[in-house]
Amino acid sequence: MISEQEFQSAELRQETELRLRKVVEILQGTDADAIIVADNANIFYLSGRFFRGYVYIDREGRRIFFVIRPDVFRPREDIEVIRKPEQIPALLSKRGILAPARLGLEEDSLLYNEVKRLAAAWLDAEITNASPILRQARMVKTPYEIEMMREDGIHQMAAYHKFPKLYKEDMTDLEMQIEMERVLRLEGSLGFLRTSGRLMEINMGSVISGDNADAPSPYDFSMGGTGVSASLPVGADGVTMKRGTAVMVDMNGNFNGYQTDMTRVWTIGEISELAMRAHDCSLRILRTLEKEGLPGVEVCRLYEIAEEIAAEEKLSDYFMGHNQKAGFIGHGVGIELNEQPPITSKNRLRLQAGMTIALEPKFVIPTVGAVGAENTYVVRETGLENLTPFPEKLSSLI
Amino acid sequence: MISEQEFQSAELRQETELRLRKVVEILQGTDADAIIVADNANIFYLSGRFFRGYVYIDREGRRIFFVIRPDVFRPREDIEVIRKPEQIPALLSKRGILAPARLGLEEDSLLYNEVKRLAAAWLDAEITNASPILRQARMVKTPYEIEMMREDGIHQMAAYHKFPKLYKEDMTDLEMQIEMERVLRLEGSLGFLRTSGRLMEINMGSVISGDNADAPSPYDFSMGGTGVSASLPVGADGVTMKRGTAVMVDMNGNFNGYQTDMTRVWTIGEISELAMRAHDCSLRILRTLEKEGLPGVEVCRLYEIAEEIAAEEKLSDYFMGHNQKAGFIGHGVGIELNEQPPITSKNRLRLQAGMTIALEPKFVIPTVGAVGAENTYVVRETGLENLTPFPEKLSSLI
Repeated sequence: MISEQEFQSAELRQETELRLRKVVEILQGTDADAIIVADNANIFYLSGRFFRGYVYIDREGRRIFFVIRPDVFRPREDIEVIRKPEQIPALLSKRGILAPARLGLEEDSLLYNEVKRLAAAWLDAEITNASPILRQARMVKTPYEIEMMREDGIHQMAAYHKFPKLYKEDMTDLEMQIEMERVLRLEGSLGFLRTSGRLMEINMGSVISGDNADAPSPYDFSMGGTGVSASLPVGADGVTMKRGTAVMVDMNGNFNGYQTDMTRVWTIGEISELAMRAHDCSLRILRTLEKEGLPGVEVCRLYEIAEEIAAEEKLSDYFMGHNQKAGFIGHGVGIELNEQPPITSKNRLRLQAGMTIALEPKFVIPTVGAVGAENTYVVRETGLENLTPFPEKLSSLI
Repeated sequence: MISEQEFQSAELRQETELRLRKVVEILQGTDADAIIVADNANIFYLSGRFFRGYVYIDREGRRIFFVIRPDVFRPREDIEVIRKPEQIPALLSKRGILAPARLGLEEDSLLYNEVKRLAAAWLDAEITNASPILRQARMVKTPYEIEMMREDGIHQMAAYHKFPKLYKEDMTDLEMQIEMERVLRLEGSLGFLRTSGRLMEINMGSVISGDNADAPSPYDFSMGGTGVSASLPVGADGVTMKRGTAVMVDMNGNFNGYQTDMTRVWTIGEISELAMRAHDCSLRILRTLEKEGLPGVEVCRLYEIAEEIAAEEKLSDYFMGHNQKAGFIGHGVGIELNEQPPITSKNRLRLQAGMTIALEPKFVIPTVGAVGAENTYVVRETGLENLTPFPEKLSSLI
């Protein structure tokens, strides 16, 4: 006999009620009557835990958790145990809930045949896309979520603090990354980074040294790297970190289900004047954006400011890559490493207080490597609050 | 200027021609005229590398790689550089290739809106599911693929050989797992396990000690574990490994894009008679299946044999879980950790020479933990060949 577990703590119950109200309010602004949620990250958002199953939410504010696995939770009025999603319509009907005329499903994050299967269980419903509803709700964090991210940032900074001590002479980038992973794991990292979409494949981050920063990758990362396998062609390429190069460390933790994204650069001895100037330029961009990133400002404005400063300092050729350039200078971050909004030149979305964004104005300097810094911020009424306030100055590992 | 790279080595070019012929042969047995492939694992299968883009294959045996990123490859007659999939139809037409009347897309592994977008680019085509074609082709490995898996197994065994030395008194399961991850990474593990589907979230594997083996998880793993976070509720729970318990180690490597799956159990001091008997029963099941696993045998027969032996030894209550039972005793493995065929009681598929399967007849003994072993095998004319021949006997870490 399995002992029953509480589905949620009192704190999480209250917190997820708040999230539910946000989702319902957005749902009421669409033409959908109800949504069925199945995406792992959205399940975690709506319940505070991961389970295999579905969450039903309707315009009237009703919410029911349909759990397939694990089947261990103390009965509660809003939990049903099921074997398959086809049971949901009858269970809703038993509760007197009418079948929705228009049903939202996560068309951007469920597999094609998953959506088809769910749609077949509600044959009479018109299917709409529920993904934008969840994206919009999750984009602006609750105070609880921000505190989770602050905690994640503290762990990430504690690990970064130990990184320089890991360096040994003639170490490869990959050997250094492996020791960093161990430090992150011992600090509490779950060793798994949730990402949005199907394309991005990643271990715990990226350590890129020297010219490898200029190697184009197939992934949507700001910096590339060839990696050590054609099956995962990104990041460290296993070469010895050489004097006169920069080592870019973009290692993440995911300590509690929420993530902060942070990059710092160390050098091996002295690096070129140009590279040092580019690093300072990155910090100048960050300081400027921290002031300009106010609620109401269009996201593309942040991109423009960054480009303007890089151009002013005649560093455009190296900004956000050299051989292959990234099309963004930052991105939302939270449960997933890549959330809304992407900070691109075309995104007219306006910043809102409570959004959490990573800004990464980086430069790739040929033969030296990548320089610059990345922090994760909360948008506040007075500007951006840094959740990763870790020293940004260049220092040498030797 | 980016220096151009060879898309494939001569060896991989020859190998992927062989894979292409397999896929075309299966395609010719369906009613599809052509397929467009975009899934990461299938891209790697068809090209020997990961790139962002698409692979077009038709009944006539033509194959074209449409590459979005990285755009660095030396021009070749079967490579086109594109920005978006909507360019593909015109590029095909320029080559004199007629639009397919029936087009296969990967409906089981692409996101709903990805399939919709591709389908919209071929408005006049009837869309069918290409996923079964790729699954069938990948299920039976080529000699080259088997050698890649053999190499992966050698690295995995080399890491396992070092695992007992990592143990320190009063260590937690999680501390032990972290040191194992480091050993695997230093041995060449990519630190990222490709899995099929959208549900399974995993770091580098699972170390489960004592009663934690009996904690149900939401994931499709044979053993559960509560984990240390509600966002990733699986595996090690951070408790000290206690005398009298078993430590199940199911840690994977993915050293070269192909994976072997292997589990071994160590004990902390002596464990109960019942647990030792169950471990021996697991080995007896494996030895029996190694002989019975011949080409032509139905997969479900392997499951039945395993269940029969467990019942004969009066261990059914503990077989494949205790509180929550797994519905399989093994699974295909290769580029992804969970491939075809799943070894379940209902799968009537017949074994074929060249299939690679992991068999994991495990037992969960309350208060002691999980016992048994898992190996990855190649189906040969004479039975199963073990790619992970590492000692299976129980031994104590103290």
